[in-house]
Amino acid sequence: MLKMLQYNWQIREEWFAWCEQISAEELLRQRSGGVGSILRTLYHIIDVEWSWIQIIQGKPDDPVPFEEYMSLERIKELSASFHGEVELFLSTWTDEMDGTRIINPSDQKEYTAGEILRHVIAHEIHHIGQLSVWSRELGLAPISPNFIGRGIR
Amino acid sequence: MLKMLQYNWQIREEWFAWCEQISAEELLRQRSGGVGSILRTLYHIIDVEWSWIQIIQGKPDDPVPFEEYMSLERIKELSASFHGEVELFLSTWTDEMDGTRIINPSDQKEYTAGEILRHVIAHEIHHIGQLSVWSRELGLAPISPNFIGRGIR
Repeated sequence: MLKMLQYNWQIREEWFAWCEQISAEELLRQRSGGVGSILRTLYHIIDVEWSWIQIIQGKPDDPVPFEEYMSLERIKELSASFHGEVELFLSTWTDEMDGTRIINPSDQKEYTAGEILRHVIAHEIHHIGQLSVWSRELGLAPISPNFIGRGIR
Repeated sequence: MLKMLQYNWQIREEWFAWCEQISAEELLRQRSGGVGSILRTLYHIIDVEWSWIQIIQGKPDDPVPFEEYMSLERIKELSASFHGEVELFLSTWTDEMDGTRIINPSDQKEYTAGEILRHVIAHEIHHIGQLSVWSRELGLAPISPNFIGRGIR
């Protein structure tokens, strides 16, 4: 499970680098599907991962307004600012935590911690798949989504 | 890991049902990104999963020509025809198998069995993300990619 998160983080960094070739206007342009723009997709991935990691830890999940992160530099800062705590928490993860029952404070629904982590993993990969279509629509090669060959074993 | 494969299989079935509302022409229409059409994406997901499961087992990975599976019915048959063996093999999966070294016969590159399974998982989710963009371009709601709430614990 942690290996798939490492994969997501590698790919995310590669998309940040990919974004450097795109104008701010293109990064914010409204597109079909997903959450609507390249930058908002990256924001959404970071926000959702962070929210769930906070919820699993029983910490308050304070809202992060997109309006404060509407540039590539700000998005990269956001990702970096959360990453330390996310990685630290996950470094304490054990198989026994998989079944821990977690209540989502926003709707009182109950999930297991493992179910939430799998949700976070799939969530990022799904949205990255959307970026890959938009990339081709822009005439650009997307980042390779291959897991194999990344040295994550 | 097996839970994420179960997730993929659920979502795949839901996309098969989603496809019922689309004409054969739309299913085969060339689109931007990915492998180019809705039907070819589903074929590709099935083919790649099957190939890697064959390779992990040391079995021959006979080519499956897309030209023989160019309808939704044929694609569903293909998925069903492989699924029994895929599920049976994965039911024997243990954590100890994760590090088993596997040589890909096509290019002689070495991976671990766990690395390959993670590749297969991410591969399907990534391509499903592409379907979700094409779905919106068609004016249709995509299948929910949520892992939470599916009862896979």
